[in-house]
Amino acid sequence: MKFEMSFPDPLYGHIRVTHLERIIIDLPEFQRLKRIKQLGVASIVFSGAQHTRFEHCLGTMHISDLIYERIKADFDEEDHQKVRIAGLLHDVGHAPFSHTFELALKMMNLNIKFFHEENTKKICEKISLSKKKDEMSQFITGDLNSYFKTIGKIATGDKEGLSSKDKFLSSIISGEIDADRIDYLLRDSLHTGVHFIGFKLSLLLESISRNEERFELIIGKQGEYRAFHERMAIAIAEAFLISRYHHYEYIVNHPRNISANLIFVKAFENSLIRLKNKDPVLYDIELNRFFNECDDQDLINFIYKHGDQQAIDLINNYKNGMILKHIFDLKSFALLPKI
Amino acid sequence: MKFEMSFPDPLYGHIRVTHLERIIIDLPEFQRLKRIKQLGVASIVFSGAQHTRFEHCLGTMHISDLIYERIKADFDEEDHQKVRIAGLLHDVGHAPFSHTFELALKMMNLNIKFFHEENTKKICEKISLSKKKDEMSQFITGDLNSYFKTIGKIATGDKEGLSSKDKFLSSIISGEIDADRIDYLLRDSLHTGVHFIGFKLSLLLESISRNEERFELIIGKQGEYRAFHERMAIAIAEAFLISRYHHYEYIVNHPRNISANLIFVKAFENSLIRLKNKDPVLYDIELNRFFNECDDQDLINFIYKHGDQQAIDLINNYKNGMILKHIFDLKSFALLPKI
Amino acid sequence: MKFEMSFPDPLYGHIRVTHLERIIIDLPEFQRLKRIKQLGVASIVFSGAQHTRFEHCLGTMHISDLIYERIKADFDEEDHQKVRIAGLLHDVGHAPFSHTFELALKMMNLNIKFFHEENTKKICEKISLSKKKDEMSQFITGDLNSYFKTIGKIATGDKEGLSSKDKFLSSIISGEIDADRIDYLLRDSLHTGVHFIGFKLSLLLESISRNEERFELIIGKQGEYRAFHERMAIAIAEAFLISRYHHYEYIVNHPRNISANLIFVKAFENSLIRLKNKDPVLYDIELNRFFNECDDQDLINFIYKHGDQQAIDLINNYKNGMILKHIFDLKSFALLPKI
Amino acid sequence: MKFEMSFPDPLYGHIRVTHLERIIIDLPEFQRLKRIKQLGVASIVFSGAQHTRFEHCLGTMHISDLIYERIKADFDEEDHQKVRIAGLLHDVGHAPFSHTFELALKMMNLNIKFFHEENTKKICEKISLSKKKDEMSQFITGDLNSYFKTIGKIATGDKEGLSSKDKFLSSIISGEIDADRIDYLLRDSLHTGVHFIGFKLSLLLESISRNEERFELIIGKQGEYRAFHERMAIAIAEAFLISRYHHYEYIVNHPRNISANLIFVKAFENSLIRLKNKDPVLYDIELNRFFNECDDQDLINFIYKHGDQQAIDLINNYKNGMILKHIFDLKSFALLPKI
Repeated sequence: MKFEMSFPDPLYGHIRVTHLERIIIDLPEFQRLKRIKQLGVASIVFSGAQHTRFEHCLGTMHISDLIYERIKADFDEEDHQKVRIAGLLHDVGHAPFSHTFELALKMMNLNIKFFHEENTKKICEKISLSKKKDEMSQFITGDLNSYFKTIGKIATGDKEGLSSKDKFLSSIISGEIDADRIDYLLRDSLHTGVHFIGFKLSLLLESISRNEERFELIIGKQGEYRAFHERMAIAIAEAFLISRYHHYEYIVNHPRNISANLIFVKAFENSLIRLKNKDPVLYDIELNRFFNECDDQDLINFIYKHGDQQAIDLINNYKNGMILKHIFDLKSFALLPKI
Repeated sequence: MKFEMSFPDPLYGHIRVTHLERIIIDLPEFQRLKRIKQLGVASIVFSGAQHTRFEHCLGTMHISDLIYERIKADFDEEDHQKVRIAGLLHDVGHAPFSHTFELALKMMNLNIKFFHEENTKKICEKISLSKKKDEMSQFITGDLNSYFKTIGKIATGDKEGLSSKDKFLSSIISGEIDADRIDYLLRDSLHTGVHFIGFKLSLLLESISRNEERFELIIGKQGEYRAFHERMAIAIAEAFLISRYHHYEYIVNHPRNISANLIFVKAFENSLIRLKNKDPVLYDIELNRFFNECDDQDLINFIYKHGDQQAIDLINNYKNGMILKHIFDLKSFALLPKI
Repeated sequence: MKFEMSFPDPLYGHIRVTHLERIIIDLPEFQRLKRIKQLGVASIVFSGAQHTRFEHCLGTMHISDLIYERIKADFDEEDHQKVRIAGLLHDVGHAPFSHTFELALKMMNLNIKFFHEENTKKICEKISLSKKKDEMSQFITGDLNSYFKTIGKIATGDKEGLSSKDKFLSSIISGEIDADRIDYLLRDSLHTGVHFIGFKLSLLLESISRNEERFELIIGKQGEYRAFHERMAIAIAEAFLISRYHHYEYIVNHPRNISANLIFVKAFENSLIRLKNKDPVLYDIELNRFFNECDDQDLINFIYKHGDQQAIDLINNYKNGMILKHIFDLKSFALLPKI
Repeated sequence: MKFEMSFPDPLYGHIRVTHLERIIIDLPEFQRLKRIKQLGVASIVFSGAQHTRFEHCLGTMHISDLIYERIKADFDEEDHQKVRIAGLLHDVGHAPFSHTFELALKMMNLNIKFFHEENTKKICEKISLSKKKDEMSQFITGDLNSYFKTIGKIATGDKEGLSSKDKFLSSIISGEIDADRIDYLLRDSLHTGVHFIGFKLSLLLESISRNEERFELIIGKQGEYRAFHERMAIAIAEAFLISRYHHYEYIVNHPRNISANLIFVKAFENSLIRLKNKDPVLYDIELNRFFNECDDQDLINFIYKHGDQQAIDLINNYKNGMILKHIFDLKSFALLPKI
């Protein structure tokens, strides 16, 4: 890898990027992620949770790199670049307020499949058509379009049609224990100020090995690594999964976070329905824009423009940290499990 | 102090608040700070710098408390509450994009004194008139209005008319080495991902003593503290001041940060002038709102509404991370020294 | 509390001590702990594990203080001082290589009850007879001897004859989730360089409440603390217990650590038996000294002096990091569960 | 590099080692470093300062690697292995209580050049003759003896006769800003619990470039790295040097540390002179052993064996944390500047 520049990062110090990665980061499709908060409305409870998908995507690229370096074996420089870019783009299809947004669409029983994995794949393909396509082509062997099609699949864990090697790369970004989850557990913990991280990154990395098309947390060959035993790898895997469980229990499913989510779902649903009834053509255009151009503020502006007074009041209350009591007391509501 | 709840915090774990503090935090005047980034446009260079004045104000209250606890001596519970609230409110008068905003006003040669210290004092007084005034009065001896007037002075370092005790409290929040600066050096460093923090908080706190109306970094009485000597306190003071210098040199005066600031100054100035020419009455109203109600997004919306096409393009470029090259190369431009 | 000086600490910054605590720390009984490693032979596997019982005891005092401050309610300054001193002295009775040492005595089927809890109580009483007894008396109401008798019971969790208040203080130092365990989990993790700490100290402290004679991790009164719910306290308790389990699984029961322990047990047992056979009087004297005066190096010197050539070879091998292979492969041997 | 195992490390997570490095680490010459404290007697002031030369040497190897990776350019795998081993062995010649020991020899006006740099070179050569020499030879092209001779020179900054490439490698370990100093500043800070570290490792690494036979903190080619400017590299260099200055001012030259050092110098000098007078032959043998076989405890045992009662009392007092007052008040005594 020839690195060209680096981004300072609260978790990992500096994250280095290649020229090709820098081109992608500078595209509007990726810059948009700077304006979408990683945890959406959760900053109402955890005031430090202001971090964005942009930082998380850089971080996922970085962790993908660390896992890759540990088990590269028979891979080459192109595979290395591929897994990094897939990590970088794995969340590029998220709408503003991501899960809240998708929940609103679900509640409206819209028969659309506008969800972020699909959208990530679409945007990856779109990137191959951007005005920077010739510059990007210099760094890639083969067709740019099919390259980014593959990236989209690796990034979202859609293994259909992937080569055995690419399936393995995909398992680095999208598995049970993967670069995406490692980064968001660490990053959300740092910024919320609470954490339940019972595993240590360096220890987890030391216990990684490759098992054909997946990477694993167990050292295959007996005695290869003096300090490690199967038993230790089990402890690390346990610790990781329990950390994830507590992270959900405490942060994602925090009663006030859930209340804030419901407020947004209600207000956004109201605005969408009103626009749909008033101007179905514009409605279709706008809905599409959310997945491609909009950021968190655009969604708020949308509610101010199309919502009724009650919807506007909900958003104003949200902005002032006010959550309705009877929503606040709900305890068992569960969000979509994957963030 | 009887604490009622706490806020998780990335730097200090949890920050506890009393009932009176919670009332203040819940006011719209304070909630607004959740939507004003601490470092304004700097997130274009340091993508992690998404943290807000809200977190910084809680943090300043917390550090004020730690300094106070170290040297409380003949103070009482009311003084304790006072210095905490002054720390909490010390930045409540900041406009969105704070220093950028003030620079634009300065460049327009407006003969107004709309700057944040003055405004902080005004908002402190306004708080004493809020609809929660009766509830707040229960926690205060004496007149609420004059209480918050004093708070405003302590918070901004305006020592005129303050009692000797209050002057001392003010030195905790606003001096050469103070709670405000300690918190922003630590907090900006955490979030930008770069740091030049050559002092350790616990060590600095251990070396604090009181010298009449100021607190100091030198242990007065020989031998009072076995592990500390005058020489050590000098080392800590040196380390603090150099950290501050490097922080400015690296983060605040980063060439791309300065470029981004200039872009905003230009675009905002353009929008203000256009509005002033078109509708001087609305212009006055809006200008006033910036200091009282507006957040970062309101300022951006203002430019979109009142700026010419060039101003709008500048903001769009900013949102996509694009900084004009010839601005980027300026090296020696200096922002206002105090952030 | 009037603090007189402080000790720098890798975990908590600085740990402050009162004049009375400083007198105790300066006694030879306590200084001895500086020369007894917290994790005994484990430094053969975790080269950073050089930290001592001295630091752990200061740390336990510090955590006791934090828990106490959270729930002091109707306690007074004397109770505060008491729980701090009990935390400070809770491990003062450990022999060098603590658990290894006790295991050797057990294996010899010695019908003695020389174990560290009993010994801690004895040394606490001895402290009340030290040459500093008059100076200490100035800080205590009532009889010094019965004061330190009580301290010994609080420190070791021996609740027999304790007042209801003191039982509560004892639960802070010696329970399921206690100051002792919090400190050693954090401290061992820092120094070994591996960690499985899935709980955050500040969060754990926020969730503490008092339930008569025990402290608990559940907020009793509904709504007392806005950010906390019963569910959260459960998550924290779970996270703590699992951290403890993984800590044992990984650090204490690390195969090479267990091997090194067995080597010491064998060599020490051999030396003891040889001395017993040769000079039973000296044997009794020496055995007693181990609990009162000896440090890690004294135990090693004892083996060099009284062990046979095989015992000496084992220690020489240990010093050079050499562990016999067939011991190394044992996987399921379990040490005494409490360290 | 093909890594075989790793050591957990409090600062860097895990430090990986190759098979050749592991052979060296397992030699008694290197294992000895596990029993020599990095900061000698300083643990009397900073109770956490129990860390050893062993950990520091692994750490210096690790930092050498990070610097090397940043600027490897036209180097090959053999150079990589070379700079790592030189980092690993750079302190292998230290006597117990290192600087204290050397000061005692100096004060005796012994006309010997037994100092640690020279001794490091000697031990490096000795390693090439160890019983593992055939196994080591498999990993090295050319003669083992001249290989380790070169290692000794690279490790100690003795550039005489080194190739241009090797001179550069040497500047990584031994310059103004080097792997040795980076590691000990970070490591001593962690363990003492005080720090004055005003630079961030990742930032320092990002600003490194190569200037013929030295590495530098300035990015040569304009614009190569978007986020960095000459000005930033200057800030980092300033921050590093000031950190080093404060580290000395506070930790190394702490009055009580200096007092403890003088105590040891006195007691050791007394024991040496007494032995010299009594048995000059044994004296020569013992003196030689200190540099080759002895650890901290051996030096203490030496004083107990050969010192007069006053010397023994000094050591006993030291073990109990007692420092003579009149020594303690000395303020301006300076140790040898390099630790």
